[in-house]
Amino acid sequence: MPSSIRLEERNHNELNKMKLDSMTFVLFGATGDLAKRKIFPALYNLFLDGKFPHSFSIIGLGRRSWSDNTFQAHIEESLKTFSRRLESNTASIEKFLRAFRYVALDVTNGETYEKLLDMIQQRERELSIPENRLFYLSVSPEFVDVITSNINQSGLGSTTGWKRLIIEKPFGHDLLSAQELNQKLLQTFKEEEIYRIDHYLGKTMVQNLEAIIFANPILQVLRNNQCISNIQITASETVGVEERASYYDQSGALRDMVQNHMLQLLMMTAMHLPKSRNAKHIREQKIKVMENLRPLGKKTIDLHVVRGQYESGEIHGESVVGYKEEPGITPCTVNDTFVAARLWIDDYFWNGVPFYIRTGKRMKEKSTRIVIEFKNSFNDLYAVENREINPNILVIEIGPNEGISLQLNSKNALNYNKIEPILTQFSSDQKDVPEAYELLLFDALRGDATFFASWKEVELSWRWVQPILEAFKNNDLPLHSYSAGSMGPDASDQLLKEDGFIWW
Amino acid sequence: MPSSIRLEERNHNELNKMKLDSMTFVLFGATGDLAKRKIFPALYNLFLDGKFPHSFSIIGLGRRSWSDNTFQAHIEESLKTFSRRLESNTASIEKFLRAFRYVALDVTNGETYEKLLDMIQQRERELSIPENRLFYLSVSPEFVDVITSNINQSGLGSTTGWKRLIIEKPFGHDLLSAQELNQKLLQTFKEEEIYRIDHYLGKTMVQNLEAIIFANPILQVLRNNQCISNIQITASETVGVEERASYYDQSGALRDMVQNHMLQLLMMTAMHLPKSRNAKHIREQKIKVMENLRPLGKKTIDLHVVRGQYESGEIHGESVVGYKEEPGITPCTVNDTFVAARLWIDDYFWNGVPFYIRTGKRMKEKSTRIVIEFKNSFNDLYAVENREINPNILVIEIGPNEGISLQLNSKNALNYNKIEPILTQFSSDQKDVPEAYELLLFDALRGDATFFASWKEVELSWRWVQPILEAFKNNDLPLHSYSAGSMGPDASDQLLKEDGFIWW
Repeated sequence: MPSSIRLEERNHNELNKMKLDSMTFVLFGATGDLAKRKIFPALYNLFLDGKFPHSFSIIGLGRRSWSDNTFQAHIEESLKTFSRRLESNTASIEKFLRAFRYVALDVTNGETYEKLLDMIQQRERELSIPENRLFYLSVSPEFVDVITSNINQSGLGSTTGWKRLIIEKPFGHDLLSAQELNQKLLQTFKEEEIYRIDHYLGKTMVQNLEAIIFANPILQVLRNNQCISNIQITASETVGVEERASYYDQSGALRDMVQNHMLQLLMMTAMHLPKSRNAKHIREQKIKVMENLRPLGKKTIDLHVVRGQYESGEIHGESVVGYKEEPGITPCTVNDTFVAARLWIDDYFWNGVPFYIRTGKRMKEKSTRIVIEFKNSFNDLYAVENREINPNILVIEIGPNEGISLQLNSKNALNYNKIEPILTQFSSDQKDVPEAYELLLFDALRGDATFFASWKEVELSWRWVQPILEAFKNNDLPLHSYSAGSMGPDASDQLLKEDGFIWW
Repeated sequence: MPSSIRLEERNHNELNKMKLDSMTFVLFGATGDLAKRKIFPALYNLFLDGKFPHSFSIIGLGRRSWSDNTFQAHIEESLKTFSRRLESNTASIEKFLRAFRYVALDVTNGETYEKLLDMIQQRERELSIPENRLFYLSVSPEFVDVITSNINQSGLGSTTGWKRLIIEKPFGHDLLSAQELNQKLLQTFKEEEIYRIDHYLGKTMVQNLEAIIFANPILQVLRNNQCISNIQITASETVGVEERASYYDQSGALRDMVQNHMLQLLMMTAMHLPKSRNAKHIREQKIKVMENLRPLGKKTIDLHVVRGQYESGEIHGESVVGYKEEPGITPCTVNDTFVAARLWIDDYFWNGVPFYIRTGKRMKEKSTRIVIEFKNSFNDLYAVENREINPNILVIEIGPNEGISLQLNSKNALNYNKIEPILTQFSSDQKDVPEAYELLLFDALRGDATFFASWKEVELSWRWVQPILEAFKNNDLPLHSYSAGSMGPDASDQLLKEDGFIWW
């Protein structure tokens, strides 16, 4: 059996074989910012790549009274501004735009949904396509409930084909509200019809995690508690609250980042080998991670969680104000703009391996990365005079740079006897890499929910976060301040120092 | 215990603490090519770096009647042409040159050694340095015997301080001649006083092998027959026989490369963890590799060894003649310009892991590298339709490029579902990296024999090679031809194909 086989051919065939079902894409919030910046360009790129149904209709919905022409002009403007495919020819754009229709809709008014249903059915007849309907809710969370129940009552959801629902975060603002929201959704959509977007799961390197972990025999050998000393997941931002003050001051880093993105990264990093690469088996494994994640109780939260809020400081040579001084923030706010935590996954595999997560705004650098630090449990020939060699470290850079690097120890030929770390690095410098929304929409079009958050994942995440939310609310643990432009409060470093580690 | 400590400080201290013994460096063959191109520049660089005794005397010996001034001018010329340290100031050069004296010597004439002894003793008195004498024999192999016995008989070797002998390859031309040579050396020098140069052991990445293997916990975990499928050691040259036709046609690749360099690389790659990093413990482990190397008998040689000779061809767009057409080569020669072999190390550690070596002239590229291919013994999620993912591979580039790279599998974000190999790479781009001779001479000056070939290693290498030498001589196995500019004869690829592998 030859040890090297190119998979290129096979994948090509797979793509060609994959016929996407003809369908209607129903976009709520079609005049909004996300649609303009992300959704239209993503759909267009998929269309150009042939990753799109042969026949399709796209219905945009919004409050404004737009004509189809106005809507199509709006989309064309969006593509010209935000699509990375500038080379696209006019014929392609025109063909793409012809699929779009616009319906003015008051989402709270059940009657207007009937007009929508008429339009959809008319288009389905015109195009001779089955009643496959994908509903994308790019709207404020308070409208999700009313829209889905109107989809149900109007008959929009009673299709003879398939139906799917794509929704954006936040999925609830605590455990109870998330459960209530999900109950309501289930009145119209089955769990397998619901595609909950966590755009971190659309990042190429997050989708790649699966391959890195499971398609590399040597990492399989090394990926266990005998070889790994700890795992660190960082998502740091340099920006402050920007225009999202009113939302963010109610949410905080814990809701905005930890409950969804950070715990999803944790699941993707810690999941065991699934039986196969389909959504069912991968979700099973992700859910197991959350089931085994040690819950934090009232008494243990302050031992394992660090809460922070940024003060004024300097980022890239520029002075920035503290969180309390940001426009739109309540002056005495105790909201968290930084969270770090130590997590334990209680299974035989990860027993004894701490996972550290940290995320915050106004930090020194913008970076999302996963760092796997390996143990040095071997006879260390180089450990004389009580000094140690540097540990081996695998770094998976998720954004803004994408790459993998492995820190090894090597002799420095210039200095006698000096052992120092070197980095073997791979940086992805591929042009035209699809954006998160492109990957996710393609998956939704072909009905692959692998990189969407399942309800069970969301619920278990809220369940783990809930006691911390309450502790934050009750001020049961200190609110550490940190200077804008730092890597968070000292308490975050202390968290690792207690275990003999440092943040990499 | 902090997990990251810089060793820099310690090494600095170590270097400062290391006082090299004052001594006399006695260079036979001082007017020769190696001295001019390698030895003088290396000594000078060490001198500039403070890696040299405080007081020292260097006596050059040659047939020509040179004055000290002529000799010093010759050395100055050598430094200007071959030293990489162009910035050196005149004061340093002058101070360095003042240490040199020249004695004209007929190496076969015992009486002239007395003149040499007088000179050395006079210099030792002048400089008030002990009788530490390092004899460097940069001469044809046929003179080694007579020089060392004259060193003995003249009293040059009867020092009150230490004495050391540095000799160049070849160390014999077969097992018997090597044993005879060693017996003669032992009449004057003890084994621990003999420094046999194998300049491959002076290459920075070969010296680095030890650190790469033993200072990286993850490679310790992976370095065994459960994780490694095979190891490949390649030393390919693009040059032909050049000006060495008369020597090479008698020697062949087996003597010129395999018995020494290739088997040394094998020992360095396969050695087990030594008790410490000193020469004694490292040599113990290297010798164990050779002791466990499965001998080839008459009946098995043609199963495991491939002999080749280059025909005319093209290298880098230039036509080159075949070996038989090279000037100075006997027309009907069956000399080997290429050797490949499959080796087995019979211990529990390497049981079942084939080692492949290959070396040759007039090959496609100039490269010395070690490739470690890992097994894929895991549940392969990506192996559908009977296709396999690429193996993980660790490549250690020894020359001309120096670096380490690890081939991992990753998703290609541009092609749905495509898993492809990526290389995480470290390339050493350090300027002013010491040359092999610098590292080796420094070690000899401080009495560290770690990176010199011990007698036992040399003897065991000849012992393993001897039956192959005889089989070549008796034409017991085919002489495969290969085109200049190829990677050797097809039989070499076949050797790996039999086991399901390819040369990387």
